[in-house]
Amino acid sequence: MTVPPLPAIMTEPLVRAALLEDLGRAGDITTDAIVPTSARAETALVARQPGVVAGLDLALMAFRLIEPGIAAEIAKPDGAHIAKGDTIAILTGPTRGILSAERVALNFLCHLSGIASATASIVAAITGQRARVVCTRKTLPGLRTIQKYAIRVGGGFNHRFGLDDGVLIKDNHIAAAGGIAEAVARIRAAIGHLVKVELEVDTLAQLEQALGLGVDAILLDNMNYDEMRRAVAMVAGRALTEASGRITAQIAPEVAATGVDLLSSGALTHSSATLDIGLDYR
Amino acid sequence: MTVPPLPAIMTEPLVRAALLEDLGRAGDITTDAIVPTSARAETALVARQPGVVAGLDLALMAFRLIEPGIAAEIAKPDGAHIAKGDTIAILTGPTRGILSAERVALNFLCHLSGIASATASIVAAITGQRARVVCTRKTLPGLRTIQKYAIRVGGGFNHRFGLDDGVLIKDNHIAAAGGIAEAVARIRAAIGHLVKVELEVDTLAQLEQALGLGVDAILLDNMNYDEMRRAVAMVAGRALTEASGRITAQIAPEVAATGVDLLSSGALTHSSATLDIGLDYR
Amino acid sequence: MTVPPLPAIMTEPLVRAALLEDLGRAGDITTDAIVPTSARAETALVARQPGVVAGLDLALMAFRLIEPGIAAEIAKPDGAHIAKGDTIAILTGPTRGILSAERVALNFLCHLSGIASATASIVAAITGQRARVVCTRKTLPGLRTIQKYAIRVGGGFNHRFGLDDGVLIKDNHIAAAGGIAEAVARIRAAIGHLVKVELEVDTLAQLEQALGLGVDAILLDNMNYDEMRRAVAMVAGRALTEASGRITAQIAPEVAATGVDLLSSGALTHSSATLDIGLDYR
Amino acid sequence: MTVPPLPAIMTEPLVRAALLEDLGRAGDITTDAIVPTSARAETALVARQPGVVAGLDLALMAFRLIEPGIAAEIAKPDGAHIAKGDTIAILTGPTRGILSAERVALNFLCHLSGIASATASIVAAITGQRARVVCTRKTLPGLRTIQKYAIRVGGGFNHRFGLDDGVLIKDNHIAAAGGIAEAVARIRAAIGHLVKVELEVDTLAQLEQALGLGVDAILLDNMNYDEMRRAVAMVAGRALTEASGRITAQIAPEVAATGVDLLSSGALTHSSATLDIGLDYR
Amino acid sequence: MTVPPLPAIMTEPLVRAALLEDLGRAGDITTDAIVPTSARAETALVARQPGVVAGLDLALMAFRLIEPGIAAEIAKPDGAHIAKGDTIAILTGPTRGILSAERVALNFLCHLSGIASATASIVAAITGQRARVVCTRKTLPGLRTIQKYAIRVGGGFNHRFGLDDGVLIKDNHIAAAGGIAEAVARIRAAIGHLVKVELEVDTLAQLEQALGLGVDAILLDNMNYDEMRRAVAMVAGRALTEASGRITAQIAPEVAATGVDLLSSGALTHSSATLDIGLDYR
Amino acid sequence: MTVPPLPAIMTEPLVRAALLEDLGRAGDITTDAIVPTSARAETALVARQPGVVAGLDLALMAFRLIEPGIAAEIAKPDGAHIAKGDTIAILTGPTRGILSAERVALNFLCHLSGIASATASIVAAITGQRARVVCTRKTLPGLRTIQKYAIRVGGGFNHRFGLDDGVLIKDNHIAAAGGIAEAVARIRAAIGHLVKVELEVDTLAQLEQALGLGVDAILLDNMNYDEMRRAVAMVAGRALTEASGRITAQIAPEVAATGVDLLSSGALTHSSATLDIGLDYR
Repeated sequence: MTVPPLPAIMTEPLVRAALLEDLGRAGDITTDAIVPTSARAETALVARQPGVVAGLDLALMAFRLIEPGIAAEIAKPDGAHIAKGDTIAILTGPTRGILSAERVALNFLCHLSGIASATASIVAAITGQRARVVCTRKTLPGLRTIQKYAIRVGGGFNHRFGLDDGVLIKDNHIAAAGGIAEAVARIRAAIGHLVKVELEVDTLAQLEQALGLGVDAILLDNMNYDEMRRAVAMVAGRALTEASGRITAQIAPEVAATGVDLLSSGALTHSSATLDIGLDYR
Repeated sequence: MTVPPLPAIMTEPLVRAALLEDLGRAGDITTDAIVPTSARAETALVARQPGVVAGLDLALMAFRLIEPGIAAEIAKPDGAHIAKGDTIAILTGPTRGILSAERVALNFLCHLSGIASATASIVAAITGQRARVVCTRKTLPGLRTIQKYAIRVGGGFNHRFGLDDGVLIKDNHIAAAGGIAEAVARIRAAIGHLVKVELEVDTLAQLEQALGLGVDAILLDNMNYDEMRRAVAMVAGRALTEASGRITAQIAPEVAATGVDLLSSGALTHSSATLDIGLDYR
Repeated sequence: MTVPPLPAIMTEPLVRAALLEDLGRAGDITTDAIVPTSARAETALVARQPGVVAGLDLALMAFRLIEPGIAAEIAKPDGAHIAKGDTIAILTGPTRGILSAERVALNFLCHLSGIASATASIVAAITGQRARVVCTRKTLPGLRTIQKYAIRVGGGFNHRFGLDDGVLIKDNHIAAAGGIAEAVARIRAAIGHLVKVELEVDTLAQLEQALGLGVDAILLDNMNYDEMRRAVAMVAGRALTEASGRITAQIAPEVAATGVDLLSSGALTHSSATLDIGLDYR
Repeated sequence: MTVPPLPAIMTEPLVRAALLEDLGRAGDITTDAIVPTSARAETALVARQPGVVAGLDLALMAFRLIEPGIAAEIAKPDGAHIAKGDTIAILTGPTRGILSAERVALNFLCHLSGIASATASIVAAITGQRARVVCTRKTLPGLRTIQKYAIRVGGGFNHRFGLDDGVLIKDNHIAAAGGIAEAVARIRAAIGHLVKVELEVDTLAQLEQALGLGVDAILLDNMNYDEMRRAVAMVAGRALTEASGRITAQIAPEVAATGVDLLSSGALTHSSATLDIGLDYR
Repeated sequence: MTVPPLPAIMTEPLVRAALLEDLGRAGDITTDAIVPTSARAETALVARQPGVVAGLDLALMAFRLIEPGIAAEIAKPDGAHIAKGDTIAILTGPTRGILSAERVALNFLCHLSGIASATASIVAAITGQRARVVCTRKTLPGLRTIQKYAIRVGGGFNHRFGLDDGVLIKDNHIAAAGGIAEAVARIRAAIGHLVKVELEVDTLAQLEQALGLGVDAILLDNMNYDEMRRAVAMVAGRALTEASGRITAQIAPEVAATGVDLLSSGALTHSSATLDIGLDYR
Repeated sequence: MTVPPLPAIMTEPLVRAALLEDLGRAGDITTDAIVPTSARAETALVARQPGVVAGLDLALMAFRLIEPGIAAEIAKPDGAHIAKGDTIAILTGPTRGILSAERVALNFLCHLSGIASATASIVAAITGQRARVVCTRKTLPGLRTIQKYAIRVGGGFNHRFGLDDGVLIKDNHIAAAGGIAEAVARIRAAIGHLVKVELEVDTLAQLEQALGLGVDAILLDNMNYDEMRRAVAMVAGRALTEASGRITAQIAPEVAATGVDLLSSGALTHSSATLDIGLDYR
């Protein structure tokens, strides 16, 4: 399935801000001084390592916001798996615009492709298992919308987008309420009917209690594989189960094998390395 | 030397935007429903791994922008080296505010501390050598100011902040100008007297030509250690020399040993993993 | 239960923008020319008709953003039921500031109290019944966050806050997918685990099909009371049922008596009259 | 006379903000998951009740900002009187874009048409009389420009747009100055030559005094019809007279019959119900 | 009469933007590196030439937005006439903050004081005559609110603040309408009752026609002193008369002697030199 | 050499803000009421005095942002020297749009051309001498980017764009550090390798010390021509020398004759009169 692109109205403010951050108060003084207005270039976005493309629309928008005359031919759209050396897109147009937008365009593309690629490698590692890979709110400031988009492009799914679109009851909430039952009761009395409730549990005893309260999902915190398996058995489909922590492609299969529904990873958004993509001039 | 903090007027828009990104259109529905207004908490920002603190001011600002009644006691300010288990700061105040701001505060603190720590480890690896560690424009969109600040906190130095505050002549510029001499001449004719000029060279022949033109710095591109050493000898102090590429703490000593003045790393800003810092409730 | 206030960080941009909209490019020329800086006033926000207070925080913020020296004593906070003539708050301070902020403060307070009051009257009309009153996305541009807050203050509950935090499958979605089953399948394959799915049905046959697909809620479109009752019986607790349309306090009891879980009303946000509240100078 | 449209540069920020408010951080997840990119729809904006169209440009802008490929054919432009069932415009294009923008487009169109229609009904009620219908500063926060535009579309006229573009001296100003004469003198000494002065009077004695001071307009506050008639006679064309309060189409003729020049209504902007307009898919 | 200050809510966005424009992406690198946090300074804003102070509030705000710990003692508030060497205010606090804000603070203060001083010198030149000095819409982009404030501080009056708060019918409007009468009629049919109408005339014949239409003010374009005198006589108090053009303190008395009511000058806002004010460290 | 234009992405926010500042909350009420939609005009931007064009792109952008249907034919682009009466550009299109945008367009064009012209006259005065004319940070708030652009168009060069892109050590910095050597040492330890260092000296003794520290440029403060000549001789090419103060075309040759490299002028940006350019309707 192709992941639908973010509408341009949502991404343009980000791209515009990134360009202005780079252009500063004087613009691209190197290119402006050296490169003639008439110069044109044909360039290619080329993968320097294998991975999954994400953020190509933002990269192309960066070029076009600087110079509307830059034409793009897309070979590998978002979601495409690329090998080292693959051409992702060909950009043709005024050399000035291409040089001035290049870094910002790559900053978006390499970062988002890095997230998508890391996500995809975990997703691939658990192919055939029921578990889904999900992200968290551990995103970089200002980039949540596009980082979560990259997660989807990589085959992952999104957890909450913010504090307001899902309930996640943690230990400190429970402590403040005086117990799980009271915490859930307060939530039920307050939230809208399209808001789901997830509850974090440390022990199987807590889990038992949570199940009786009809929560939609349960976050299994700090459990080993054996506890997870027993938790999944206890839940028996009455709620979704989420295993969190530093899920890597290496340990993902083992975690997924416990039968949990969700493998959540904060590292995908807060610590993914970029995917190395460069712009080659021909 | 202590790195001067960024003035609050520069960071507040970022922190404010990050909080609004997380609060969305309904705010923290979990905390609001469960935690009484009167509840108070004492909490501590605690290192879960060793590293260098950066971004504590932004984290504390996040708490206070949500709830001015949160008091902070700082134990480890920006620049402090911390061990696993170290308390960075103690936050006391209304539980609601602490819970609602926690994630955003940590997103800033862990990301910037991650960058500072990675920088510090390379800096430490070349202690006693003349080379400095510098960053690049490969930053994450919208975060350049604070990422470059974290580089400084980690003991690194800043390269250009944008396209407008320094000249970096690359191969495509040279090609567009028709040669190094012409490129440099065009720059000289255009730029202000406080702007320095760096030029990227691939070969020692290009280097020779660049030196004759009096550029301030030379980026040695794709050179092996031996070429770097010869380049440094050729330059003989007439310009600064910069070695770029994926500089790690492992290879940094060897690169620095070539005698170059600058080790630049894009990875520090585009691919640093976060430093794991948590908020413990007492 | 008291409805938690919106954090100031969320409301301040709105209040600030409204003040600037009113001050224009020259400020309050009448007050500035006539009223001495030294003049002070004691004033009271007084209800001119009965209802429920909502938006008092925003009103007070308007006064204080213009003039920090204005002190407020709150008698009837948000959620309070007020009678005609009740004093909601007493404001004391420089006359200039009070006069300049008055209109903007009242514009917020009267509008939001109007929504809360209208909501409360429907809620009161169905006391003792299970149904909840919910709002829609038919809000006035830019005011969604505070209008939905006013709904909560009036005892209602919030439906989706936007297109992104809940799924509502309508007839045109079903048509585009080629059927209910396919539409739901596509949604399942795409959405996060904390997102609920509501589906709009026109007929009991559609309803039957929807139930088999396990959707979380069902919007009963254009059904008469008898059809609603049969729909509720068919659903038998397997999903929530929502009756929509122009729900008034008059018809709400009858609609609620059909056994539906939710009475949704767009008019509460798009067509509520203001609650008449004035500022009396003493 | 056709009312000139607001330039797009003035309305686009509002439409853009309203779309982003609705799209949130993930966009239209229902439509994106279900509706194929290739799907196209022909739809019509259809009146579900009679009234006057206002805000069509903003509605169409909403569609086009989401999807530039949506074409519109306008049948009933702003200012047109429409009957139930009338087609206002036909929109053709990608189904995704139409579905995603629909609610925001209607929120503008129904709200502004509601104001224009309410205005028009009062205007119609006093046809043939000299009085004009005018609005106030009792507008909804952030919407003043477009609400006041809708008043004009409905045949009404605009009062002040803010505190800065006209003088309105109220009782508290007079009290602070120590009298009407002093208040007017202070104003004369301060304001620009293109700013008019209106003064609120409670009694005919105050009116007498005001007339001697040459104010441009007089707001007759809390006067009954008989007092208004006497006031109008006293004024004898030396100033404009304004009757304010909850002017409805029912009482407007009687108020206008007193001979006042202006009937001002806050309710038109703060309490108008929307005009019911829907989007029909064909 | 003291000119009322602009409310801080109106000026703060400008001051904040100006500071960020100067701080860029790295802040004040000179001061941050050299001046210790603990250093404190006592400084004085000192006039280097005589004039009228305007914009002191904005200057002080610049210091305090950078460093809240800077205390100010005001000796010469806005509107004060100052001699060379006069101390305007004394600023005491952390040296870093004072140094970092100094330039921005002075940029506001010197520019606005320059406008106020230029205005005051024309005002002084026509003391005892009835004419007022007024500004135009020839302001520098983004600075209209504060430039027009400075005009008031200098003893001048404000003309229109924009295209929307007053009518000024020029020759091209008349041409488009097909005549003065038609132009005025169209205006009368469209504008609100608090909007005044000014009309530009080139000849006494046009003037005659305009007077019959009851316009509020007449702009005498390109008339010599004699024509002005005759125009004033013809008008005979039925409208205000405005003489425009490059009014200087030298020619102002002669122009005012023609009996016109208003001397308008665009140069006051678009071409005033700054008043030289410096910050002395003690 | 042609000065490269600022990219539209950098200037559009300024032009947009200026238009909104002028349109206010109601738009161009004069033109909207009088001029028919169908009216078209051919107009010309005409020089009323000789000078150098700057800001034409911004002026044309103003017209097109109001009315995309306005076509422009450029006769004298930025940098062109114009004589009185010269046509700079011809604008054809809907009269409404031309009238509504005219003032804002001219405000940009006349201001920036004024700066460019003033710069050019100083540059011309020192033709054949080595000195360059440079600007300062004494710019008008919010306009730095475009004012500094106008300096370049006039043949001048840019000094620092802000506090962050160059080091300028002044007397108060030296005092805070305890000496020139310490100040420079602290800077060296903190700044990036592409940042140059300029130091202000009052005496030749200070100059001697500064030269020994290897600073890049030296600002000669308050020196008479003789001191300047001696300073230049002492420097002997080891650094750039800058003479500052109120440099005019009259005194520039004499200052330049001292042999300094840079003549800096704050007045060019803070006190340039506009160049008189008008819009003629044909």
